[in-house]
Amino acid sequence: MKRYRNGQIWGFEPAESGREVILGLDGGTTSTVCICMPVISMSDPLPDPLPVLARAVAGCSNHNSVGENAARETLEHVMADALSKSGSTRSAVRAVCLAVSGVNHPTDQQRILNWLRDMFPENVRLYVRNDAVAALASGTMGKLHGCVLIAGTGTIAYGFTEDGREARAAGAGPILGDWGSGYGIAAQALSAVIRAYDGRGPDTVLTTNILRTLHLSSPDELIGWTYADPSWARIAALVPVVVSCAEAGDEVANKILQDSVQELALSVKAVVQRLGLCGEEANDSFPLVMVGGVLEANKRWDIGREVVKCISREFPGAIPIRPKVEPAVGAALLAWNSFMNER
Amino acid sequence: MKRYRNGQIWGFEPAESGREVILGLDGGTTSTVCICMPVISMSDPLPDPLPVLARAVAGCSNHNSVGENAARETLEHVMADALSKSGSTRSAVRAVCLAVSGVNHPTDQQRILNWLRDMFPENVRLYVRNDAVAALASGTMGKLHGCVLIAGTGTIAYGFTEDGREARAAGAGPILGDWGSGYGIAAQALSAVIRAYDGRGPDTVLTTNILRTLHLSSPDELIGWTYADPSWARIAALVPVVVSCAEAGDEVANKILQDSVQELALSVKAVVQRLGLCGEEANDSFPLVMVGGVLEANKRWDIGREVVKCISREFPGAIPIRPKVEPAVGAALLAWNSFMNER
Repeated sequence: MKRYRNGQIWGFEPAESGREVILGLDGGTTSTVCICMPVISMSDPLPDPLPVLARAVAGCSNHNSVGENAARETLEHVMADALSKSGSTRSAVRAVCLAVSGVNHPTDQQRILNWLRDMFPENVRLYVRNDAVAALASGTMGKLHGCVLIAGTGTIAYGFTEDGREARAAGAGPILGDWGSGYGIAAQALSAVIRAYDGRGPDTVLTTNILRTLHLSSPDELIGWTYADPSWARIAALVPVVVSCAEAGDEVANKILQDSVQELALSVKAVVQRLGLCGEEANDSFPLVMVGGVLEANKRWDIGREVVKCISREFPGAIPIRPKVEPAVGAALLAWNSFMNER
Repeated sequence: MKRYRNGQIWGFEPAESGREVILGLDGGTTSTVCICMPVISMSDPLPDPLPVLARAVAGCSNHNSVGENAARETLEHVMADALSKSGSTRSAVRAVCLAVSGVNHPTDQQRILNWLRDMFPENVRLYVRNDAVAALASGTMGKLHGCVLIAGTGTIAYGFTEDGREARAAGAGPILGDWGSGYGIAAQALSAVIRAYDGRGPDTVLTTNILRTLHLSSPDELIGWTYADPSWARIAALVPVVVSCAEAGDEVANKILQDSVQELALSVKAVVQRLGLCGEEANDSFPLVMVGGVLEANKRWDIGREVVKCISREFPGAIPIRPKVEPAVGAALLAWNSFMNER
């Protein structure tokens, strides 16, 4: 306890300034972002830009990836940094929303709540969520309603009804069937190259394009390349090659992207159906927040647009939203909303 | 050099006995087996049982898994052990065939040949092969002709023509498309459980059966289970559960096994076609050696039998063989054959 209450991390803290603040954190596998916002009454719609006091960035805080101690330390540092930049102290904090990847089970949530509890005075409201929830809130400006689809290296769909029920689909990694993700797309492209090479599949321009990108001279060198470092992000980085091959008319690459669209749309449909977000007639409107590199609309072969088309055929009330703020701001808005409603 | 020529490992060596011997090694990811056979003229067909002088077993010798130094030491120990048990010395060795997993490229082969060269006098003939080649030889009693299909945790098809051309398919791991393997079957079953749970797929009795086997209470606990230790063998160990669910009539499990049969047959067909093993009329006969837990004929839902059926429809000349000796004996027979032909 002492280590957290009086340790060096919080050594900067000045005397109380009187201004109440909120912290929102987005903890992913590559970085952690912390946003500090003031507790003030805001208009509806919210002001643009939002009153953000400070933003701090640190490394990975997924406890599955770096272990609990490192994750705790990273979170504590990034919060201390954001408070210091905003000229605030821990005693000014009224609520913290920590949205972090790797929260898949109530036991994960409770363990992380316990760490946070050690860092703050007892009256601070604490919320721990899967990082997908912050992404949803970044599109709905803090309202937990609708469905978010994230497709970057991994993929997950996560939804909430207005009365607080929630559901998710995918988000379990490729071993457990997340085939629409960036990793899934790239792994299928690598498979297609091997299959063409050993006679199990059709020829594809993915072969020359992927080998050129990786500076390899033969498909059998892909085995060594893959096992040298099978990290998901390294493999997912090949998605742009697959997209450009599909745009050039390659059938194998097109099939991979079409399958990915079906998979991503299926995750959203499963969540929408379980929660009844579309209403009984399947045409109620609901926000559909789209996040992640795979869904970015910067290509002729636009995966995100195709996913929306596919979902809209079944649920015409889906309102696609591409967030203008980052997920950490979504987390801060969630904390702010909850605090304003509960106090 | 000194370490290998005069080191403790070879300290047992007695005076020359005069009997010439051959070593055959099968180095897999779980264990390494070394067989010592005498160099004698043998009848055709070969005597049954074969004249095996000694058998020794050690741990993993896949250099990709344990690193080069550990792999070298394991190989040296297991050969010393087999020679010691047979009352022979290194100077009695005429040929060594080392068939080891992880040999995917000529550079792998050359590097391992260099280690072996350090361990034996210059006149010893040395052969380094992918472990699939020893499995083929275990079915053909040392003749490099035909196609072997291995399906255990992983899968590979490997073939040779009588004039020495060779080809392989799969054997690149699941990221690169080996979906017919034991790992592939089990990973698809785990996916099916998650997909049924989150509403993306049909219900399946795989759910209750897999959760019971793993002592878990809910499908969302599979995420933690998988990432606690994503080793292929641990996941592939679920294959019997999938087979029993398929036998009980579960459609999802049946579909997974049928897909696996298609994938495994496709690997063999690709090799047979590239090598022209079936002749121009597609009905020449050739040995089809079947190896590995997934292909064992001990179930009502017999994956191996279905694979053979599928291959025979296209290539009626395929002669299925289930080896009676282990791959290390195949490696020893390969070394013996090469030595007898070349001396």
